Order: sequence, then C-alpha cells, then structure tokens
Amino acid sequence: MPDPRFYNRTGPFRLADLAERCGARLGSGSDPDRLIHDLGSIDTATTNEIVYFADHAYVVALAASKCGACITTDELAPKVPPCGVLIASNPRAAFAELAAIFYPDTLATPPQIEALAADAVVGEGALIGHGAVIGSRAVIGARTRIGANAVIGPGVVIGEDCKIGANTTLAYCLVGNRVIIHPGVQVGQDGFGFASTAAGHKKIPQLGRVIIHDDVEIGANCTIDRGTAADTVIGEGTKFDNLVQVAHNVEIGARCIFVAQSGVAGSCQIGNGVIIGGQVGIADNVKIGDGAQIAAKTGIMRDIGPGEVVMGYPGKPIRQFWREVAALSRLTKRDK
Amino acid sequence: MPDPRFYNRTGPFRLADLAERCGARLGSGSDPDRLIHDLGSIDTATTNEIVYFADHAYVVALAASKCGACITTDELAPKVPPCGVLIASNPRAAFAELAAIFYPDTLATPPQIEALAADAVVGEGALIGHGAVIGSRAVIGARTRIGANAVIGPGVVIGEDCKIGANTTLAYCLVGNRVIIHPGVQVGQDGFGFASTAAGHKKIPQLGRVIIHDDVEIGANCTIDRGTAADTVIGEGTKFDNLVQVAHNVEIGARCIFVAQSGVAGSCQIGNGVIIGGQVGIADNVKIGDGAQIAAKTGIMRDIGPGEVVMGYPGKPIRQFWREVAALSRLTKRDK
Amino acid sequence: MPDPRFYNRTGPFRLADLAERCGARLGSGSDPDRLIHDLGSIDTATTNEIVYFADHAYVVALAASKCGACITTDELAPKVPPCGVLIASNPRAAFAELAAIFYPDTLATPPQIEALAADAVVGEGALIGHGAVIGSRAVIGARTRIGANAVIGPGVVIGEDCKIGANTTLAYCLVGNRVIIHPGVQVGQDGFGFASTAAGHKKIPQLGRVIIHDDVEIGANCTIDRGTAADTVIGEGTKFDNLVQVAHNVEIGARCIFVAQSGVAGSCQIGNGVIIGGQVGIADNVKIGDGAQIAAKTGIMRDIGPGEVVMGYPGKPIRQFWREVAALSRLTKRDK
Repeated sequence: MPDPRFYNRTGPFRLADLAERCGARLGSGSDPDRLIHDLGSIDTATTNEIVYFADHAYVVALAASKCGACITTDELAPKVPPCGVLIASNPRAAFAELAAIFYPDTLATPPQIEALAADAVVGEGALIGHGAVIGSRAVIGARTRIGANAVIGPGVVIGEDCKIGANTTLAYCLVGNRVIIHPGVQVGQDGFGFASTAAGHKKIPQLGRVIIHDDVEIGANCTIDRGTAADTVIGEGTKFDNLVQVAHNVEIGARCIFVAQSGVAGSCQIGNGVIIGGQVGIADNVKIGDGAQIAAKTGIMRDIGPGEVVMGYPGKPIRQFWREVAALSRLTKRDK
Repeated sequence: MPDPRFYNRTGPFRLADLAERCGARLGSGSDPDRLIHDLGSIDTATTNEIVYFADHAYVVALAASKCGACITTDELAPKVPPCGVLIASNPRAAFAELAAIFYPDTLATPPQIEALAADAVVGEGALIGHGAVIGSRAVIGARTRIGANAVIGPGVVIGEDCKIGANTTLAYCLVGNRVIIHPGVQVGQDGFGFASTAAGHKKIPQLGRVIIHDDVEIGANCTIDRGTAADTVIGEGTKFDNLVQVAHNVEIGARCIFVAQSGVAGSCQIGNGVIIGGQVGIADNVKIGDGAQIAAKTGIMRDIGPGEVVMGYPGKPIRQFWREVAALSRLTKRDK
Repeated sequence: MPDPRFYNRTGPFRLADLAERCGARLGSGSDPDRLIHDLGSIDTATTNEIVYFADHAYVVALAASKCGACITTDELAPKVPPCGVLIASNPRAAFAELAAIFYPDTLATPPQIEALAADAVVGEGALIGHGAVIGSRAVIGARTRIGANAVIGPGVVIGEDCKIGANTTLAYCLVGNRVIIHPGVQVGQDGFGFASTAAGHKKIPQLGRVIIHDDVEIGANCTIDRGTAADTVIGEGTKFDNLVQVAHNVEIGARCIFVAQSGVAGSCQIGNGVIIGGQVGIADNVKIGDGAQIAAKTGIMRDIGPGEVVMGYPGKPIRQFWREVAALSRLTKRDK
C-alpha cells in the first residue's frame, strides 16, 4: 500500500467498474460487486487488493498470494487461484490504468504554492534558506539546514543535522540523519516506467518512495527516482559523486561509493561496500554482491558476485579485460 | 527569420557597414548601400537576407537561393550568383559577428527581474508554485502546474494540462499539451556553437527555439539546447529518462524512448519509435531511421537505417557485436 | 591557507590537544604546548602549520619543508625532520579530523537566509533576477546579470559583463569577466574526498576554491567541485557543453573544448587548446598536453602528450583504435 503521507487513495471500487474503466472484462465466475480497495503486489497483497499477473514465472507465487483480485491475460487466466479475475490483452497497461484510478493525483509533484506550509514541522536550530519552499506536513529535523531555493515536497521527512543544498528538489522521500545533499539534486520524481502499446507509451503511476539512510552523501545534480510500488533505497554511509542516476526500485547497500556520472537502471540490488567507477552503467534487474568493484566506464548486464572486480563493455573479470586489450593490440601487428 | 517572440532584431544595415563591422570586405561589383534586414539560410533566404557560404557542397543550392547577400571566401566568391558579396577569411566566424549585430541581446536568457510579468497569460485552473518566475508575454495553458522556483522565460508558450517540475528553467521554447517536465530540467539555453579562430572560440549566436510536442515527458536534470537557426524538435509522445542531453538543431520523432544519461549531438535527425539505451552517445549530423534500437553505452558515428538494432563502440549490428565479443575472448585462450 | 573569504578558521590549538581530538599520540620529544595555527601542505607550510605525511615518496620534500608539525605513521616517523610529530594509524583520516577542527563549519554551503546580504556589492548596471539570493560579502561586477532563482554564496566574486543562468548555485568561487554560466550549473560544492576506514568513509573537508578565468562558458547542469587544499581552475576562453563534471583540484588550461557529458576526475592537469569529446572520462591525476584531442566516449587512464589524438577504451592513438576495430571485424569472418 502506497505511503499515505505521499499518496491520496480513492475508492473502493466494484470489480466490474474497474474492469470497465481499464478496458478489461470480468473473468467467468468473478463477482462483479466485489470491492477492491487498493493495488497490491503478488507477494504482499491482502484480500482487498488487486495484483497483475503477466508472466508464467509467477504461477507459484500467485498460488500462495492472498490477493482479492488479479488482472491477467486469457491464456494465463486458468492459472489464477480462486479470486476475482479481470482479463486484458495487456495486463501491465491495464494495471497502469487502475493505478491512475486509485491514485489519480500522482503524476507530478504538486507545485507547492506557499513558502512554508502551516502544518510543516521545523526542528530546533534548523535553518531554512531564502526562497526555500517547505510542503505540507513536511518535517525538518533539528539543526538541519535547507539551502536557498530548495523545494521540499509535501510529507517529506528529513532527519537531524542534515545539509540540503541550494536548488534541490526533494519529494516522496524519507531522509535519515547527517545526510548531505549537494546543490541541484532531484530526489523522488517519477521513475521511468511505461507500458508500451501501439498507441504510444502509457505512463505507469509510480507509487513508491525514496528512502535515504543516515550519513549518505549525494553529489551535485544527481537524480534519484522514487519506486514504482516498492521503494528506492540508499543504504547507510553510501556516497555519491556528482551527476549520478539511480532509477526506480533500486536498492543500494551501506558504505558504497558511486563515482561521477555512473547510472543504475531499475530494480538493481547492490550490496554493501560496492565501488562503482565513473560513467559505469548497470542494466536493470542486476544484482551486485558485497564488496564488488566496477571499473570506470564498465557496462554491466549480468549479476556480479561478491568481491568480483570487473571492467569492460560488457563487464568481465578485470584481468580478462586487460588480456583482451593486449591480444587485440598484438593482432594488429600480426595482421600487417 | 528568428521568432520575434524570443529575439529582438536591429537593423536594417548597409552592406558596407556590415562588412566593416564583421571584418570582411565588399566583393567587386557589390552595392555598398544595399540594405540587409536579417540573417538567412541558403534554402529559405529572401532578398533582404544575408547567408554564409563556406563549403563547395552548397554551390547548387546557392545558385537557386533568393538571398540578397552572401558572405564567403576569396576562393568561393566566383561561385556566388548575382547578389551582394562579402569576403572574409573565416566566413563562419564573420557570420557569427553579423548575428551578434542583428540580434545583440541574445547571449543568455535575461534574468527575469519580476515574479510574474504583467503581460504574461495564465490559463484557467493553472497553478503557479511559490517562487516560480514567469516572463514577459509567456503563456501558461489551462490546468498546467508550474513547480516551485521554476523559471519560465519571456515569450515561452506552454500548453494545457502540463506539469512543469520545480527548479526547471524553460526559455525560447514552445511546449504542447500534457507535457511532463521533471525537476531540474534546463530547456532552451544556447547551443554549443563556436567558430574557432587563432584568437579563441567565437560564440555563434543561437537564434532558434525548442519545440516540444504533445505528451512528451522529460526526466530530471535533462538539458535541451535551442537551435542555431532552425529549431530543436521533440516529437509527440517521446519520453526522456533523467540526465539526457539534446544538442542544438536535433530533430526527434514521435514515441521515442531515451534512457538515462544518453546524449545526442548537434543536428541529428531521429525517426519515430526509436529506442536509445542508457549512456548512448550519438555524434553530430547522424540520421537514425524509424524503429531503430540502440543498445546501452553504444557510440553512434554513422547513419542507422530503419529497424536496425545496433550495439558497440563504434556501433555495429548487435549480432556482429556479440560475435566480436566471443571472438576476442577465444583469442585470449588461443594466445596462452 | 584556505581563503578567509570562504573559510572561518578557529584555533590556534596546542599540539597535545590536537593529538587527543584526532585520535593520534604525540611523537617522542614533541612539545605538547606547541601552538598550531592552521593546516598546511608539505611544499608551502609555515612553522605555524601542520601537514600530513603518509607516503615515502614525499621524504625529500618533507626534509625541505618549514612545517611546524607533521602527522604520520609509526613506520614513517623516523623520516620526519625536527618538528612536532603526531602518530596515527591512518594519517589521512586523522588529518581530515584536524581539518574539521580548524574549519568546523565547512561541510556545506550555508543556506543563505536573506535574499541580498547587506554587505554584498552589486556593480553598476548589474541586474539581479527575481528570487536570486546573494550572499554576504559577495561581489557582482558591473553589467553582470544574475538569473532568476540563482544562489550566489558568501564571498563569491563575479567579474563584469557575466551572464549567470537561472537556478545556478555558485559557491566558494572567483569568476572572471565575460563568463557565461548556463542554467542549472553547480559550482563550488565539496569535492568527492573520503578517507575510507573500517567504520566507513570519513569526509575530508574541502578547503579550496574554484577559479574561473575570463571568457569561459559553462553549459547547463554542469558540476564543478572546489579544491581540497589547492583550487580547481578553468583557464581563459575554455568552453563546456552541458552536463560536464569537473572534480576537485582539476586544472584546465585556456581555450579548451569539453563536449557534453564528459567528466574529469580529481587533480588532472589539462593543457591549452585541448578538445575533449562527448562522454569522455578521464581518470584522476592524469596530465593531458596542449592541443591533444580525445575522441567521444574515450576512457583515459594515462598521461596524453601534446597534440596526441586518442580514442578508445582504454584510449590509444586513433589510427591504432581503428586498426583494432578492423582486425576484430576480420577475426569474426576468419572464425566462421
């Protein structure tokens, strides 16, 4: 269930009404009057929630799910355990539609039309820079300093002794203590998620948060998207250089180092003490083990084990990378 | 002719005066009193406009041009059809000088010294965030929301139902309907154009615009430069992830996807439905056909046909890329 | 000695007190009451200053140093010439602690709690945009324009005829004349410097500045960190495209070109007239000679001589790069 500090839910809705509004049809035997209260995921859904099921790989998990309803395809429908069923040709796009129905107002951070919301809480000794904007129900911890012209969105919680740079935007996030966020950082905007159809790219509402643990430092002009359903998480003591990109649902462990201009695609899981060199790119859904080191400019497209040292495009063990560099150089001599 | 909503033209000027001010000399037989009203390009110039001609490749186009004057080199001067002629050792640098004469005030967005210009138009139901700055003659469409501390430059037109993030800067641009621009995006600054001479890099005035069509989404901290003479164009329904760079005069089609930290150099033409992976770089003047797919981290230096799937540095057909990866790996074994 | 316009020093402190506060012990024969007034570097320290010595390579330089005290390891202590000695297991981390003692207030730019500080100086004909924030003792030169919502930190000096974009943050920097800084640029934040220990990454206070010479242009959303002890320097007439990263202590010569999304790691020295292509990455401590050219996407990990033209990952002479591309392509044919 999305965090009610950030997202206003509507509903509940009748299953038949949801079907109509998202262009699906009711599965045979499904109760049209069943009330659905929220979106869920297969693992954690309750009997009030609807999930989507678009991939055979989740058959076993779905069998164990407590979900109240499920949106799926004609082909997969026979695999669905007893619950309400909606049938759609593109369940992911239909689920995006459902998300927009339950959470209609989440496509962008509201503009904050007052400077310091009356119901924001500012801790003792905190300093708010000129032109900074503090949203409704935001909480600024003791001794935290907010830079000039920073924008802190509604419901955002910032811990104690933090330093938030000028011209930053923080939305949909919970920030720990002693966190340093440099100027121009953008945290908590929508992740880059679309259900692509013939008619174009349909936006999937992003209903998660960004969780930034204690002692994190985030360099100038970095961008950290919020999660789709789960959260984007930055572990304790992890440090980002400038212009780093972190996509939605990424989970990063403690005490990692991200050098400038590196980027991590959606849903990656990165362990503790990992070092990511400058301009490294990591494809989506990759796992990187504790203490791994990725050399600058490497492109990672597969899981990396704990302690591995990797370089190249595609990334490979660093000694193999240098062997290949040498072999290729020798080859040009041999060819002459 | 540059868009008068964004650029204030001076003049007209006598051809002889222009010659003197840009360090050129009058071609033999040219009328020193001929009045020149504006800059033009070879294809579209009128008899009031001056163009530059510095490359043999344009001889045929120039022969058909209606331009009133032309700045060129001694060597190329005999190829110029009947019109006023100026001779310069570096016509591109001299033309940059002329641009600065006709449009003296265009080197940077003015600072916007008032919060909401008296002649700006704000549509019904639009919301302007705290600290946002709306320039003279700007138009904000109905129900569009402008984020806190965003800066909307003079003459900018934004359509209906748009969401403009906090801390963005929009200048010299026309934005369609239902466009989402995330926080920290910079649109419409000068393109990166210089005429390099022994004395240094002379700035070429950038007199175009950025045109953003309906349903475009632009990720946090992206940068989109305005055109030099023509426009930078983003087609309908195209989506940018964070930290993407788009240089001057780039034309991007409809429904494309640009993953984070990709960059497109000047004057590229990108078709419809193209997918550009993360950290891809595309060199200037490249054409990419409809439906092409460029894998993450690829470097493109040549035209890519419709539907091609390309990977590597330099980019090549993706199967060839993986064949080379395998061959290089085998080579290190053979060498042992 | 850090620039007192930007950094407030405390002290002096007794050597024994410093030892206790940074977790070091006094070397045998060192006067516990010796007063230390500041941090220094081996080359330039005075008898009032303390330096750190953690690498045999500096034995000769240290022998000639005028430093008043030195923090080092047990093993290196016998090499220290007569002066106060502190012994620590990790002298770099202990020195970071000392820096935080002498300069306790430097971990982030203060938030600027007023719009235009009473003691700021604004030159004749300068224009300050709406929402811009000008810090204490800042100096804005004649005819310089500051964009809307820009934040100019305390003590910053900007020359004449500059154009500073909207939503920029300038701190700890001195800017020459006719400099153009595009929107969203972040200058002068902390460099990315840590002393890594078992307990995590300990921040090293960054006590230098950014020096930007005349006629420099800096593209949108670039990030330029200030120096650690020395300065980050951008030479006259050098031009940056958008989204470029410059790390702490980098020195860049005159009339260079940096294309978009390139990045330079800490302490690099780059000559005059160097051209750096898009998405190039340069590792730390590299020297690049005058007039060198680095092709787009190249990764540089070694020094590059004057006039060299380099491409690839790792960077190599450009003809060798293309030979290797051809050889690898042939290899896949041979393998079939």
